[in-house]
Amino acid sequence: MPIYQAPVRNVQFLLQEVLGFQAYAQLPGFAEATPDLIEAILTECGRICEEVLQPLNVSGDREGCKRQSDGSVTTPKGFKQAYDAYAEGGWIGLAAPVEYGGQGLPYTLAAAINEFVTSANMSFSLYPGLTRGAQAALMVHANEAQKALYMPKLVSGEWSGTMNLTEPHCGTDLGLIKTRAARNADGSFAITGQKIFISAGEHDLTSNIIHLVLARIEGAPAGTKGISLFIVPKFLPDAQGNAGVRNALSCGSIEHKMGIHGNSTCVMNYDGATGFLMGEENRGLNAMFVMMNEARLGVAVQGLSMSEVAYQNAAAYARDRLQGRALSGAKEAGKPADPIIVHPDVRRMLLEMRAFNEAARGLILEAALQADVVARANDEKAREEAEDMLGLLTPVLKGVLTDVGFDNTVKAQQVFGGHGYVGEWGMEQFVRDARIAMIYEGANGIQALDLVGRKLPKDNGRAVMAYFKKVGEAVQHTESNADLASLAKGVKSGLDHLQKATMWLMQNALAKPDNAGAASNDYMHLFGLVAMGHMWLVMAQAALRCKAQDPSTAAEMDAKLILARFYMERMMPETGARLARLSAGADAIMALPADAF
Amino acid sequence: MPIYQAPVRNVQFLLQEVLGFQAYAQLPGFAEATPDLIEAILTECGRICEEVLQPLNVSGDREGCKRQSDGSVTTPKGFKQAYDAYAEGGWIGLAAPVEYGGQGLPYTLAAAINEFVTSANMSFSLYPGLTRGAQAALMVHANEAQKALYMPKLVSGEWSGTMNLTEPHCGTDLGLIKTRAARNADGSFAITGQKIFISAGEHDLTSNIIHLVLARIEGAPAGTKGISLFIVPKFLPDAQGNAGVRNALSCGSIEHKMGIHGNSTCVMNYDGATGFLMGEENRGLNAMFVMMNEARLGVAVQGLSMSEVAYQNAAAYARDRLQGRALSGAKEAGKPADPIIVHPDVRRMLLEMRAFNEAARGLILEAALQADVVARANDEKAREEAEDMLGLLTPVLKGVLTDVGFDNTVKAQQVFGGHGYVGEWGMEQFVRDARIAMIYEGANGIQALDLVGRKLPKDNGRAVMAYFKKVGEAVQHTESNADLASLAKGVKSGLDHLQKATMWLMQNALAKPDNAGAASNDYMHLFGLVAMGHMWLVMAQAALRCKAQDPSTAAEMDAKLILARFYMERMMPETGARLARLSAGADAIMALPADAF
Repeated sequence: MPIYQAPVRNVQFLLQEVLGFQAYAQLPGFAEATPDLIEAILTECGRICEEVLQPLNVSGDREGCKRQSDGSVTTPKGFKQAYDAYAEGGWIGLAAPVEYGGQGLPYTLAAAINEFVTSANMSFSLYPGLTRGAQAALMVHANEAQKALYMPKLVSGEWSGTMNLTEPHCGTDLGLIKTRAARNADGSFAITGQKIFISAGEHDLTSNIIHLVLARIEGAPAGTKGISLFIVPKFLPDAQGNAGVRNALSCGSIEHKMGIHGNSTCVMNYDGATGFLMGEENRGLNAMFVMMNEARLGVAVQGLSMSEVAYQNAAAYARDRLQGRALSGAKEAGKPADPIIVHPDVRRMLLEMRAFNEAARGLILEAALQADVVARANDEKAREEAEDMLGLLTPVLKGVLTDVGFDNTVKAQQVFGGHGYVGEWGMEQFVRDARIAMIYEGANGIQALDLVGRKLPKDNGRAVMAYFKKVGEAVQHTESNADLASLAKGVKSGLDHLQKATMWLMQNALAKPDNAGAASNDYMHLFGLVAMGHMWLVMAQAALRCKAQDPSTAAEMDAKLILARFYMERMMPETGARLARLSAGADAIMALPADAF
Repeated sequence: MPIYQAPVRNVQFLLQEVLGFQAYAQLPGFAEATPDLIEAILTECGRICEEVLQPLNVSGDREGCKRQSDGSVTTPKGFKQAYDAYAEGGWIGLAAPVEYGGQGLPYTLAAAINEFVTSANMSFSLYPGLTRGAQAALMVHANEAQKALYMPKLVSGEWSGTMNLTEPHCGTDLGLIKTRAARNADGSFAITGQKIFISAGEHDLTSNIIHLVLARIEGAPAGTKGISLFIVPKFLPDAQGNAGVRNALSCGSIEHKMGIHGNSTCVMNYDGATGFLMGEENRGLNAMFVMMNEARLGVAVQGLSMSEVAYQNAAAYARDRLQGRALSGAKEAGKPADPIIVHPDVRRMLLEMRAFNEAARGLILEAALQADVVARANDEKAREEAEDMLGLLTPVLKGVLTDVGFDNTVKAQQVFGGHGYVGEWGMEQFVRDARIAMIYEGANGIQALDLVGRKLPKDNGRAVMAYFKKVGEAVQHTESNADLASLAKGVKSGLDHLQKATMWLMQNALAKPDNAGAASNDYMHLFGLVAMGHMWLVMAQAALRCKAQDPSTAAEMDAKLILARFYMERMMPETGARLARLSAGADAIMALPADAF
């Protein structure tokens, strides 16, 4: 059975020593979040993840969700009790507004615990995850009556939420949506159509499920400008706001998926179901994008989560498994063989994961802090800067963290050899579960296009220029420190490559948009490499400072300095190759006729 | 349901136009293999793959193999009939010696059809695949009586074969094997122990199963020098050579695996089973290595096979799926959306697969030709050169083709978006099936170590020097052709990187073996990139020639020239990054204490 230990100490190091969490104390909810409280929150959530959620991960995968003949869906054994414990702990509403029963704590802390929950049990994490997404959409777009009706029960976890976008013939291209909304006399709408791939669409964890559904009001314009967003509850709330009459919607079937078997991914049929318009008519996509941006960060976290838990298991196995001898001579001559962690190539795989995990965690928490500033700061300039950074980093984090996170689960599986391919150790489940994160909430190709096509040119490149400045300053700062100067080289040259790539896009993509598309994936990954390299510079600076301040942390901080060096030597060289690839342009890519593929 | 069409035309192009198959006509079995006969063989095998084996791929995955209470194993519905048809077609013995009932045709053709069979149904392919491996071991190490007894039935497919190496505590490190062999009075041995991960260990396809089992004879030296190889039939042959008395061995359970569910992967228990020594006492590992080298090429083929079938499905989907509009403006304005093949990033994914597939197929067939020369040529010098090349390329092909082949199944799945994650289209099965090829027959880390630790230094680098010369000549030849000169640059610089990497290993690995281990994975992939780049140069030369000779092939040959250009622009830049990574050495990798992971 797989193991898991929540990386509480690393989160605290990042928040307190790297990202200057305490400097945000003027934001609402931050003053309460003292280092001690954060420690208590992370530790307690970690405990639930380790003791309650993680033990259900393998069994949840094997049992899966079952649709009963009446259309109800049964989640795996233990999920209901675990969900109740999780909801009662107040974890779903950790960062939700106090007025709706939430704790009003920073979203950054919610992102931190989201990592733990997903590492412990990704299938489980989707149920509260979708509910948080629904809360986010309601807070921005719903009217006060709707918020008063739905928010408290979503915050407490008594009810859960979903997102209903995809239809059989349309995923990325939501302009093709066919689900229709007919006006009822009372101002509500009758929703009719089929949605597919609906995570947590039907289940037995909550007494009601609030579906947020994209549909087209009769007579609305064609395409994306004719789509509205509706609240479609499984049970229509009665006058007291409790779950009342059953609505005309049902789970038609459960998708048979590669992984996340513990999550019920449903085909949802709406047969004239009663829905309530949320936000403005025909502006549904805009409303949905609010949910999607938070959701994209949430999915980025999944890449990190799966890489982290896979790493922990691979490291433990590599320390234990005796097989062969070190190339440099036996390390444990008294045993029949050395542990495989003596082998450089096993260490390479582990270090690639570990160096990714710590940098990715830093980036996630940094982005979450920006999201807190956007949502909570009074200072308009600060909000604008944070929004720039968040908008720029969101597609990078979603695309890169889920791509590399998946690759890392494959690497962790490789450390186990044949034992990684069989179910017993749980490693192949991590691969299967992690795979979806590259696809949903906008396939990673869409993230890359969002980055090069929208986020880069936005406001004449204001966000990316500010980011380059920040990375450049970190390079200079590192260069000025004799103990760290050698680390700066890789990021300096990576930044140079990224700037050249950006320039190339400016010069070549406007006149020929296919050049942007052809470059997008390499550009996104180049950006991610530089962002993680930058994070390692900042972490190395913090590690050196911590070690000087408190020599008892020397071993821990030295490990970070080794990881920083490893990252520079082994990961950053890829930036040059990414630049060379994308600079080749679209010609060879577009040359082959479609029927010659 | 997935589609598949055997790439008969591409194999013929490679054999006849690129690899000069007809020049080998002096080798036994080659003269018969005229272009027309090859066409007929490939076409007929392709037909069986497309019509018989491929339709059982998804159902075989869903149904899986079942161990019954009596220890027997039932293969998925349809496998037995398909196996009978396949065996009766003579496909298992295509390249086997005529004296044992085989067709004596080139092994190269067996490798070509092996690709087709694996693309169509990887789980199925393992049953005849293991049998061919057993034949190879018998031909080299068994005595005449043993060959006479077992070969005809293995060649006809009436009986099947297995390899029994792995035990719960030992995979890579076979010196730890505990299974023991006690001498019986009649010269046979009583084999006792447990083997795991035994592909095709027990099933209902054949009337007997011939297990080749590694075990330690009582009193044998410890470690790898005390291991012997035994023939342990499920049913002991009687005086007439037919399956007789049941032997004391059984399938204890079936492994629950990530994929290849249609293949029965067994825990095999030997309880004093009667076994017959094959080859010399205590030289069992050497005998097994004969099997393993053929098996490694066979596994390399699996990487190609899965990439090929995944590509075919992704290309078809990309041509059909309507979603969004081309960045450069609508391409099919009359339809609700353009097919996604208009998007550069979708094309990038498809072209990465396609450029890999054609080059990988060329390399497999080239290596198979070398294997034929080794096995069949009279000229000692020719045999030595072929053996050098085959030994050098085998770990590269096994490691690189299965790593990249797996990545390509993931890319193909990505083209499908959410539809790739559900079972319906069969794409996620390709990912799950392809994953094992990176692990078995020596995990890819072992292939990389074999390459840098054994194959490179062997005979003072004779093989690698010859290979560099060959690639360098192809570069020069390409440079001298004005129509192709632009292609040469990438391979020229890749070869330069590979030579520098080789030099780095010579200078740094002897004194410090960890440098070899730390460099091994990057070196192997760098080698693979250059090998595929070289193959693209040769293929481009052939394409240009064919087009000039027969203008009706222009479209087909132009596609190859586009793919060659794509490969140079998009794949070759990675060589510089690989060199930079490996040149960093082992220090950062070895610095972290084991308990700090």
